[in-house]
Amino acid sequence: MTEFNLIAHIRQRSARLSQVLLGIGDDCALITPPTGQVLAVTSDTLNAGVHFPHDTCAADIGHKALAVNLSDLAAMGAQAGFCTLALSLPSPDASWLDGFLDGFLALAQTHQVALVGGDTTRGSLSINVTAHGWVPPQAALRRNGAQVGDDIWVTGTLGDAAAGLAQLLGGEHTDAALLARLNRPTPRLAVGMALRGIASACIDVSDGLLQDLGHICQASGVAAQVQLAALPASPALLALGSASALYRYQATGGDDYELCFTAAPAQSHAVQAIAMQLDLPITRIGRVVTGEGVQAYDADGALWQPNAAGYQHFA
Amino acid sequence: MTEFNLIAHIRQRSARLSQVLLGIGDDCALITPPTGQVLAVTSDTLNAGVHFPHDTCAADIGHKALAVNLSDLAAMGAQAGFCTLALSLPSPDASWLDGFLDGFLALAQTHQVALVGGDTTRGSLSINVTAHGWVPPQAALRRNGAQVGDDIWVTGTLGDAAAGLAQLLGGEHTDAALLARLNRPTPRLAVGMALRGIASACIDVSDGLLQDLGHICQASGVAAQVQLAALPASPALLALGSASALYRYQATGGDDYELCFTAAPAQSHAVQAIAMQLDLPITRIGRVVTGEGVQAYDADGALWQPNAAGYQHFA
Repeated sequence: MTEFNLIAHIRQRSARLSQVLLGIGDDCALITPPTGQVLAVTSDTLNAGVHFPHDTCAADIGHKALAVNLSDLAAMGAQAGFCTLALSLPSPDASWLDGFLDGFLALAQTHQVALVGGDTTRGSLSINVTAHGWVPPQAALRRNGAQVGDDIWVTGTLGDAAAGLAQLLGGEHTDAALLARLNRPTPRLAVGMALRGIASACIDVSDGLLQDLGHICQASGVAAQVQLAALPASPALLALGSASALYRYQATGGDDYELCFTAAPAQSHAVQAIAMQLDLPITRIGRVVTGEGVQAYDADGALWQPNAAGYQHFA
Repeated sequence: MTEFNLIAHIRQRSARLSQVLLGIGDDCALITPPTGQVLAVTSDTLNAGVHFPHDTCAADIGHKALAVNLSDLAAMGAQAGFCTLALSLPSPDASWLDGFLDGFLALAQTHQVALVGGDTTRGSLSINVTAHGWVPPQAALRRNGAQVGDDIWVTGTLGDAAAGLAQLLGGEHTDAALLARLNRPTPRLAVGMALRGIASACIDVSDGLLQDLGHICQASGVAAQVQLAALPASPALLALGSASALYRYQATGGDDYELCFTAAPAQSHAVQAIAMQLDLPITRIGRVVTGEGVQAYDADGALWQPNAAGYQHFA
């Protein structure tokens, strides 16, 4: 399989969407911008052995490579639009590519994301996706809008992916529900769009809750107090041990791809209505205060010191 | 240096441009589309040891990683706008990064390209750039518009980069002018924009003239006849040997990043006026004919069979 066969194969399997004036197969793709919206752009790379274990199945890699990028669009309140895909492969393996595209394109179809171009090259297994979405300029959910007195909320449950990864790396029995959360994260695009005009700041939890919430605090010039006992946990996570043993996964584990956002207390009913409508738990976990940094308190009200900070890509 | 230090460093060195509503530092960048134009998107990766020798200096890598993407925008007739940068590095090396940014950002400034986001990860040295530009929808230079009877043109000179690479890999004396063309290609953005409404089809020469011209032929349903004796050569290339020994570099060498385009014979004066205005040679090298494929003829009118086809990423 040559590079051009690979590209032809990807092109054949990619859906065409109406905003795409010209898709895969020319020097550039051409996209018609929708009226009254600005373009949201994000780019994330997954490297084998760094962002996923070497033996992760191709379809899971395909899903996750797109999901982590769509999660950034969700955190901006953007509607997903289109993406490019740059694949570095040790060798041109048609069966691996088909598996990868199964995962990638299924998620793309779910969110009506067009794959419009990219690149295939020889190299260590590495996948870069640059994802693009659209949002009215005033509606974008930035990190810098948190106000003292705001509630802090988080979608879904926390810590599942980190607990699944720990099982995998430890050679323990692995829980399917936890592994599914690690390998098949769900980008919260519908929540992000519903939070336009409601959230004062938003981020996706990719490197660990406390660290990512810290980015909101830093950008907004505020501090955050988090109640660990309030952090949402899945049944699969709760089955692993006592609540306090799980804090590390929930508060500092990466790869959750839930949204953490702040909102004025007056928006509490609106947030709960979104949770009802989308059938997704959204949990109040703390409060924005004056100062700087993020303080987490355990069930006894004692300040909690995590053993490990959030994920550091070069640590 | 942690990932966040790296990003902060990149952010600090990046210029802010007016179309960028929100740059590096949030979940996404936000860009305001200019009225009446469509977005042109392209994404190319450079891997160490594949796209450049391991000992290439950081500034050259930075320049080239952006240049090859801007070249795709040029081939579309687009005006450069903004880009994302995804860097995989074996280790966070501040001095390497500064060198890389020297090359990358100098070229970005030349073309008023904003660096709006991206990613830094640990991994084999790999650089992905996704570049974005703008073009009125009817003015885009696609590959599929070549008509039988059109002239075939190429900008600048051909074969320099391939000859420089051959010297480098062969351990020979290297010519500085040839190496500069290999390591510091010039994206032909001004030519691309000037060719709006004049060229019938266009591509950039990245994998070798005959191969890239073949993509125009395939997309347009036509064939091409190329006169090898007409291919433009630099003084540095001509110093290497007889004209016929250079055909391989000029006709099949990669990495030139010149534009190859077709235009109706009636546009010949317009093309020459662009060459004058931009002080860049633009040379007529052949003719579009019926059929399929690209035929190249030597100075004696004999059909030429290259020893090697153009660059194959997985060959």
